[in-house]
Amino acid sequence: MIVRDNPSAWQLLFILRGSILPRIGRPLALTVGIAVAATLLHGRLFDTKITLTPIPFSLIGLALAIFLGFRNNATYDRWWEARKLWGELLIRARSLTRQWLCHVTPADEDQHRRQVYRLIAFAHALKHALRGEGTDHTGDFLNQDERPGCVAAANPPDAILRRVGAELAAAVAGGRVNPMLAAAIENNLDGLAAVQAGCERIRTTPLPFAYTLLLHRTAYLYCLMLPFGLVDSIGYATPVVVGLISYTFFGLDALGDELEEPFGTQANALALDTLCRRAEIDLRAALGEQDLPEMPKPVDFCLM
Amino acid sequence: MIVRDNPSAWQLLFILRGSILPRIGRPLALTVGIAVAATLLHGRLFDTKITLTPIPFSLIGLALAIFLGFRNNATYDRWWEARKLWGELLIRARSLTRQWLCHVTPADEDQHRRQVYRLIAFAHALKHALRGEGTDHTGDFLNQDERPGCVAAANPPDAILRRVGAELAAAVAGGRVNPMLAAAIENNLDGLAAVQAGCERIRTTPLPFAYTLLLHRTAYLYCLMLPFGLVDSIGYATPVVVGLISYTFFGLDALGDELEEPFGTQANALALDTLCRRAEIDLRAALGEQDLPEMPKPVDFCLM
Amino acid sequence: MIVRDNPSAWQLLFILRGSILPRIGRPLALTVGIAVAATLLHGRLFDTKITLTPIPFSLIGLALAIFLGFRNNATYDRWWEARKLWGELLIRARSLTRQWLCHVTPADEDQHRRQVYRLIAFAHALKHALRGEGTDHTGDFLNQDERPGCVAAANPPDAILRRVGAELAAAVAGGRVNPMLAAAIENNLDGLAAVQAGCERIRTTPLPFAYTLLLHRTAYLYCLMLPFGLVDSIGYATPVVVGLISYTFFGLDALGDELEEPFGTQANALALDTLCRRAEIDLRAALGEQDLPEMPKPVDFCLM
Amino acid sequence: MIVRDNPSAWQLLFILRGSILPRIGRPLALTVGIAVAATLLHGRLFDTKITLTPIPFSLIGLALAIFLGFRNNATYDRWWEARKLWGELLIRARSLTRQWLCHVTPADEDQHRRQVYRLIAFAHALKHALRGEGTDHTGDFLNQDERPGCVAAANPPDAILRRVGAELAAAVAGGRVNPMLAAAIENNLDGLAAVQAGCERIRTTPLPFAYTLLLHRTAYLYCLMLPFGLVDSIGYATPVVVGLISYTFFGLDALGDELEEPFGTQANALALDTLCRRAEIDLRAALGEQDLPEMPKPVDFCLM
Amino acid sequence: MIVRDNPSAWQLLFILRGSILPRIGRPLALTVGIAVAATLLHGRLFDTKITLTPIPFSLIGLALAIFLGFRNNATYDRWWEARKLWGELLIRARSLTRQWLCHVTPADEDQHRRQVYRLIAFAHALKHALRGEGTDHTGDFLNQDERPGCVAAANPPDAILRRVGAELAAAVAGGRVNPMLAAAIENNLDGLAAVQAGCERIRTTPLPFAYTLLLHRTAYLYCLMLPFGLVDSIGYATPVVVGLISYTFFGLDALGDELEEPFGTQANALALDTLCRRAEIDLRAALGEQDLPEMPKPVDFCLM
Repeated sequence: MIVRDNPSAWQLLFILRGSILPRIGRPLALTVGIAVAATLLHGRLFDTKITLTPIPFSLIGLALAIFLGFRNNATYDRWWEARKLWGELLIRARSLTRQWLCHVTPADEDQHRRQVYRLIAFAHALKHALRGEGTDHTGDFLNQDERPGCVAAANPPDAILRRVGAELAAAVAGGRVNPMLAAAIENNLDGLAAVQAGCERIRTTPLPFAYTLLLHRTAYLYCLMLPFGLVDSIGYATPVVVGLISYTFFGLDALGDELEEPFGTQANALALDTLCRRAEIDLRAALGEQDLPEMPKPVDFCLM
Repeated sequence: MIVRDNPSAWQLLFILRGSILPRIGRPLALTVGIAVAATLLHGRLFDTKITLTPIPFSLIGLALAIFLGFRNNATYDRWWEARKLWGELLIRARSLTRQWLCHVTPADEDQHRRQVYRLIAFAHALKHALRGEGTDHTGDFLNQDERPGCVAAANPPDAILRRVGAELAAAVAGGRVNPMLAAAIENNLDGLAAVQAGCERIRTTPLPFAYTLLLHRTAYLYCLMLPFGLVDSIGYATPVVVGLISYTFFGLDALGDELEEPFGTQANALALDTLCRRAEIDLRAALGEQDLPEMPKPVDFCLM
Repeated sequence: MIVRDNPSAWQLLFILRGSILPRIGRPLALTVGIAVAATLLHGRLFDTKITLTPIPFSLIGLALAIFLGFRNNATYDRWWEARKLWGELLIRARSLTRQWLCHVTPADEDQHRRQVYRLIAFAHALKHALRGEGTDHTGDFLNQDERPGCVAAANPPDAILRRVGAELAAAVAGGRVNPMLAAAIENNLDGLAAVQAGCERIRTTPLPFAYTLLLHRTAYLYCLMLPFGLVDSIGYATPVVVGLISYTFFGLDALGDELEEPFGTQANALALDTLCRRAEIDLRAALGEQDLPEMPKPVDFCLM
Repeated sequence: MIVRDNPSAWQLLFILRGSILPRIGRPLALTVGIAVAATLLHGRLFDTKITLTPIPFSLIGLALAIFLGFRNNATYDRWWEARKLWGELLIRARSLTRQWLCHVTPADEDQHRRQVYRLIAFAHALKHALRGEGTDHTGDFLNQDERPGCVAAANPPDAILRRVGAELAAAVAGGRVNPMLAAAIENNLDGLAAVQAGCERIRTTPLPFAYTLLLHRTAYLYCLMLPFGLVDSIGYATPVVVGLISYTFFGLDALGDELEEPFGTQANALALDTLCRRAEIDLRAALGEQDLPEMPKPVDFCLM
Repeated sequence: MIVRDNPSAWQLLFILRGSILPRIGRPLALTVGIAVAATLLHGRLFDTKITLTPIPFSLIGLALAIFLGFRNNATYDRWWEARKLWGELLIRARSLTRQWLCHVTPADEDQHRRQVYRLIAFAHALKHALRGEGTDHTGDFLNQDERPGCVAAANPPDAILRRVGAELAAAVAGGRVNPMLAAAIENNLDGLAAVQAGCERIRTTPLPFAYTLLLHRTAYLYCLMLPFGLVDSIGYATPVVVGLISYTFFGLDALGDELEEPFGTQANALALDTLCRRAEIDLRAALGEQDLPEMPKPVDFCLM
């Protein structure tokens, strides 16, 4: 996630970090190149005048606007929903911790720490399952005896939640928590399960592929044909205008590709490392620990 | 559901799998054919010049944009809501399993397995009710004595849920679960009932038919008349432009038809088989079983 | 509700059932008539040339697009929310039935049937309150002694819910249900109350009337003036284009009128009879009854 | 709230009641006046020809469309959310009444009536707090001893809710209600508190003022400059077109102003009196009272 | 937050307070300056005629409209969600207070006041964490012994909630509250935790930076090139039109910047001070205190 103050107008024009420009360099070069050629050839191709006017582009533009607007909204909604789910993870983890510490009599000295650390492990396991790469810190927050069973499970976050639930059930069975309040804790556990399934849904269900095809094809053909439609009316300004229009269309399209997968590691993806750290700090602070880690700092304006 | 990496720009133009092109081949051929004819005849029909200009198409285009944009959003919302409901099914099934295993003392050795397998059967029964075709695996996860009663019921998923509820009630009556926690389990059972009713709603309530009529008629007439509006200004480029515009309008329309019924078996429908398998794996893993089935692999980029 | 397979392109153009055409025949004939007259008179009215060009129509079109798009979304949302509320009714009725049968010890032999039949009566009473016409089947599902009190009440569905609640309270007082699970049942009762109030809200609160006025007036004036703006540029094609544009504008408007009142008996309204029957079948099946009624079949493609 | 059947097309054009026309008469007269002047002067101002064409208005129109569309959606959402909150009030009040009557053993003969009447008082107090004018009927439904404390409180509805809560707490303390069901009642009390805070939010938080400024300024300047852009191409039709466009823009804008404050007493505001009466009738019917008041009738098509 | 009555049309044109004009003065001056220069030079730059027509601007305008519309909706949604979260804070704080006072037997004379004051402190701590500046009044509402621990914590609002929870747990352990009702109180505590995490989410997750870049760049280039596209057709009116278009585009953009961070101290940010005061008044009134502070008055039409 890019974190920076609003740059000045002048800076804006030259910022590359977080910009979508590098991703769309090649198609952009292609359309501008064709525009230059069309301008020099006065819109002729192999001695045949291409008789396009700007009119068709207004008509196609309408359909393109629907596609782009829709896809942009849909991908942003996915991204924002993903962020909300991780916010929900924080809520549930904090509440569960508060309730556990307040309402459950520990069976042994280490039980409180063990249970709360499992929630931190849950956040890490979920992050690892979603990103599918990088070091997996899940095991660092699990006791040695349960580490292998959880990390190697078919569904590690789910396995961890089951351990949390089992510990709660033992507390209920041992009379160390009021059943009524145990039900409130169960409710937060359900909430964590909902967060996990929500993230899995976003991760495994892309936007219907036909949208991508339909949009890409239309946008490419539009921009490739555009120079022939403009050259007769605006002459040497054609490449500039074609470049600007291609930039906005390809840029919005590429940004959609990034936001569609909010759990990735691109510049505009969510800062899952930071959110895991946030959970770690808050949960360990709730346990009364003092040597808390620091929040990550942005590297090159980017939080991971 | 089509699952594939973003293809390169070049590939994009020739991909057919997951594309909407094959579905709209005939009307597309028709409009392009008319465009070719109109171009060759210079916009004349039986010696009468059709005096259309591009102007009416901008005006109609506005209304068409509202229709297409609206219908696209509405059908996509149905598709995404359907996916959310199946995600909710996973959440509820997992949470119910966790709670049952943790908080209920089994009456007999097989009870835990029996109850959890019923949830897998619920997923299969719901899938079968929604798709209405293919092999029905519901019975594989039910005990022999309850299989006939459930599979042949007026509403199989509902019948299974009632069995799950009856087992829970027996546990409450037998003092094998705390009533407070039984209420939490009931809550997840309600959630499964909500998933079922939500899917039924989407399955049985199409978009108001008048939208389909209004949109199809307008789009068809628009595209059939378009060549006569363009031929005077862009000449031989008419068929290309008409083809591109028809492609976007018919394509978006046909995609809407597919997404409107998210539980079908078309390429862009939801991967219900995969979701049922996911539920099976997670629930059987929670029971501690080892011989778990594998997740399905996409066949020709398509998950069912 | 119109239920039919997607007709072929050719059929589409001539379908009247479910179409909005019959509703807008008169204004459509008016605008086309004016267009024909304007074409024949070359845009003159009493020897005065009306100097309109297409330009004003693009400008007005923008505002009209906002109105039409907004109203269409708002009325469809009402329609879909109404459908969701009835889906919720099914969820709550089924869950309440499941819980009642599982967790409540009946006071007498008929109590289970009586209580569940009240829920079917609730669906009928709500349907009758919303439609305000047709035969009222509410009484068929109530015992003779409570029939008059419920059917003649100021608010029949509410009166029925109070009976359901009173039966539950008696069960709690008699120790025939665990208070914890009684609270879960109460929760579903609250859900039914919410469904009722939601339907009442949609039924009694039309879209602000000023929208209807603003939209109708603008659409009418637009279509009446349109021939004079087009005749100079497209000549004899004017009536066709005006007809098509009027069809889309009046059609979308009339469809909005229908969807705004989703509980009516027009072709595009919700199939409340079918939903009541669905509730009846599922609830009676849960009671173990065998002589279940059939689901209604569409008559002339239309489910009521 | 305007309540009337859909008028015929002919009537529509002359209805003033519920129309936004009277509110925008002055600016409308201004723009039409300028249009007439510009037409007579052939677009000249002090001997200088204003060289405007329709083109700038398409460009500005785009931005204006975004503003108008956004503001319209935002204000309608506020209005509809406000209506939903009052619907929620009805749900919660009815459910709380049902639960109180069913599950609480009254301490004295009048307690049931007293508690339920407090809920009616809550509706009136909330209405009075939101409208800030008119007669306050809150006291009519409160006992004499608690009337002063509630009506003169810093936050009357909140004070009433606290009394309802205190009565419930006394019932719990006196063992006259099962704690489990008391929690369900508390839940509905929370719901009423949520309704109150939601209404306060809408009441005290206008749309950001900068939107109003930006939109008003753009719309005014657009309509004032428009005659000079149209006069060259459409001549004597200019005042008509300018009038129609101004009517739609100013009308939508003024309607937004009305809907932004849904608790006011304008024609398009919510019918809070009617909703309070609805609550009164349903709650008193639940108490078994017979002399129920009638629902208000629309006066001049308008429900207050 | 700007609070003022709708000013008259005449006033509207000259209001600066709450207007976005001061923020966009410089880029506006730049584009108007270029427009003046282009007009005087008849669209020539260094003796080269820039052959732009209005056509490209319609095409780019379409993409720009998507960006502006989307970003405007997204930032307004953030702003409104933030307001809803603070409304939720009021709901939860009031409900928790009502429940605590009704259902919990105080351990000592000051306990009720202490607990309720902690909720006021929570509001202040959250405000301070979100604004990150100004005086922090959190400590004023905490007892001396817990003040340092809370104010200096890694996450002060969370630390306060844990104290509230601990007090509740002590009441449960001491049998001073029914566990069932304690669970209802816990539920409201969870709600406060959700409010906090929701505000943190909005505070720490800006809109993807690539949107800002894409939008700013397109808007700037559009407005800088616009004079050359208009000068040939509208001559001396160019600077006026360019100024108006730049004003709408830059204005909407700058307003988006303000609303994106709803917890700031700009004119259009949320009135957090007022909301904290509202919580203080209502909660202290619930305690029966008499010397309540007044609600803040707007200063120069602005509530902080």
